[in-house]
Amino acid sequence: MDREILSLIDEELKKYVNKNNKLYSAANHLLLSGGKRLRPYLCVLVYKLKKDNLSEVLPAAVSVELIHNYTLIHDDIMDNDDLRRGKPTVHKVYGNAMAILAGDLLYAKAFEAVANIKDNRKAHEVLKILADACVYVCEGQAMDMEFEEKDSVSLEEYLDMIRKKTGALIEAAAKIGAVMGDFNDEEMKAIEKYAENIGLTFQIQDDVLDLIADEEKLGKPVGSDIREGKKTIIIIHALSTLEEDKKNRLKSLLGKKDITKEEIGEAIEILRPSIEYAKNLMENKTIEAIDALKIFDKDRRKPLEDLAKFIISRCY
Amino acid sequence: MDREILSLIDEELKKYVNKNNKLYSAANHLLLSGGKRLRPYLCVLVYKLKKDNLSEVLPAAVSVELIHNYTLIHDDIMDNDDLRRGKPTVHKVYGNAMAILAGDLLYAKAFEAVANIKDNRKAHEVLKILADACVYVCEGQAMDMEFEEKDSVSLEEYLDMIRKKTGALIEAAAKIGAVMGDFNDEEMKAIEKYAENIGLTFQIQDDVLDLIADEEKLGKPVGSDIREGKKTIIIIHALSTLEEDKKNRLKSLLGKKDITKEEIGEAIEILRPSIEYAKNLMENKTIEAIDALKIFDKDRRKPLEDLAKFIISRCY
Repeated sequence: MDREILSLIDEELKKYVNKNNKLYSAANHLLLSGGKRLRPYLCVLVYKLKKDNLSEVLPAAVSVELIHNYTLIHDDIMDNDDLRRGKPTVHKVYGNAMAILAGDLLYAKAFEAVANIKDNRKAHEVLKILADACVYVCEGQAMDMEFEEKDSVSLEEYLDMIRKKTGALIEAAAKIGAVMGDFNDEEMKAIEKYAENIGLTFQIQDDVLDLIADEEKLGKPVGSDIREGKKTIIIIHALSTLEEDKKNRLKSLLGKKDITKEEIGEAIEILRPSIEYAKNLMENKTIEAIDALKIFDKDRRKPLEDLAKFIISRCY
Repeated sequence: MDREILSLIDEELKKYVNKNNKLYSAANHLLLSGGKRLRPYLCVLVYKLKKDNLSEVLPAAVSVELIHNYTLIHDDIMDNDDLRRGKPTVHKVYGNAMAILAGDLLYAKAFEAVANIKDNRKAHEVLKILADACVYVCEGQAMDMEFEEKDSVSLEEYLDMIRKKTGALIEAAAKIGAVMGDFNDEEMKAIEKYAENIGLTFQIQDDVLDLIADEEKLGKPVGSDIREGKKTIIIIHALSTLEEDKKNRLKSLLGKKDITKEEIGEAIEILRPSIEYAKNLMENKTIEAIDALKIFDKDRRKPLEDLAKFIISRCY
């Protein structure tokens, strides 16, 4: 990832959380603790397929990051998670009430950023895309919460859920870059296809990493999805393909709160073929994503090709 | 209040919460339980000072009501309140996680409503006003939370807090009506002055009603501000004007969780001169508000004059 662009994004972000009090400290706790900035970075790279005036696109780009951060804060409260990126979550440090409010503040700041787009038509277009994405994110999160109570979830239901919960904002980031870059309809369609595919691989890679990553880089214990009994694509695939005895053993380990390290290791062994399935799927989706970019200039599309490859090779 | 306008507002609102699942039920729980619709109504009345094409202003008007409802849901979680308008609060019925999410959904829907404004320039202007108001509301709520931990709060600090927490969204509603109605600078200034004054009286009336209202109409027990030790304008005034012995008695009752009905009655007696002070202040502010409307057509401004009077005469 391009350090110069990343530092421009960070500078722009800081403009929105610039007060020195408890509310703003809570809002900054996660925002300035070094996320990947995937969404604003994607937005800027898409814009740069056609245009180079970065100051035009930056407010639009950070609006998506601000929304992303509000969702992380609120999700951590809903899931009662103690750690994020190896640090205590906002509500653990500031309490639930202040964490809800910090998320609400970032939500407002995201739309303040959209309002800072100079051109009326573009601001209006970006507003539509971002508001729709916010609705999808809530609907996806609600589906995810329902899945926890459900006995079985189909692959189709899972894909619908993550397309909303995670994909919608990644797609929005790309489309917003396209609006700011004055893309025509054909170019917009290509970008939507690219973003849909990398959005999916991003979520699958998260699910894979939960099982095979280095704990220190991940910032949380390996196998936490197993302990929590989360329905990830890997687990859904395993439950629909494993032989009866292995399936039953896996089921007995999923959601087991006092699961041991050895049992997690055993579950991961059982899941091995499904991890391979997920990796294959990601590779195919990455090829599709890169393929969609063909209509753009060769040199200009290179960073987006690299980003697609980075997403499936990242280890945190 | 004009029933025809109110029913148009309700119809428009329903367009935004139109799905049949748990998330949308949680989002609707409060929204469709009959609020006063003060903010969208104000927005429409301001618009009608100059224009009559109501379908133009309705999406803008409901955006403010959707924001208002998200803040109520989140505030009730933060304050751990069980009742609102005599009904169990959203988080009591649906749990904290779903209530946070329902608030987040309404937040998104508010900006979806802004995106539904047809004119690019007006949508952009409304977006600016609404996003700024959302930031103020969060900042005001944070101040309110800090006040609970503070020993003493000055009248100035209190006024700053409620201007943000309650006033900002009422002012935004009026300004949004003015933008949609193509007001000139002088007309906008007049509307801002009107809205600032009625926003203040609205909050003060809330504080007065907590002490002297009919419990059934209020939907919660009288004197709950005393039990919770809230710093309202009445209590701040009392603490800075009462003689030592009465002040000490009042202090011993504020925030007393097991306070009896008799003790609440006693506190209200001690607060009597401060209630009178608050009523006087409201009357003066109402006169100022009505005075600001003088530049508008006599017939067209009448509903706004009535609204200002309604606010200080309402009993729920």
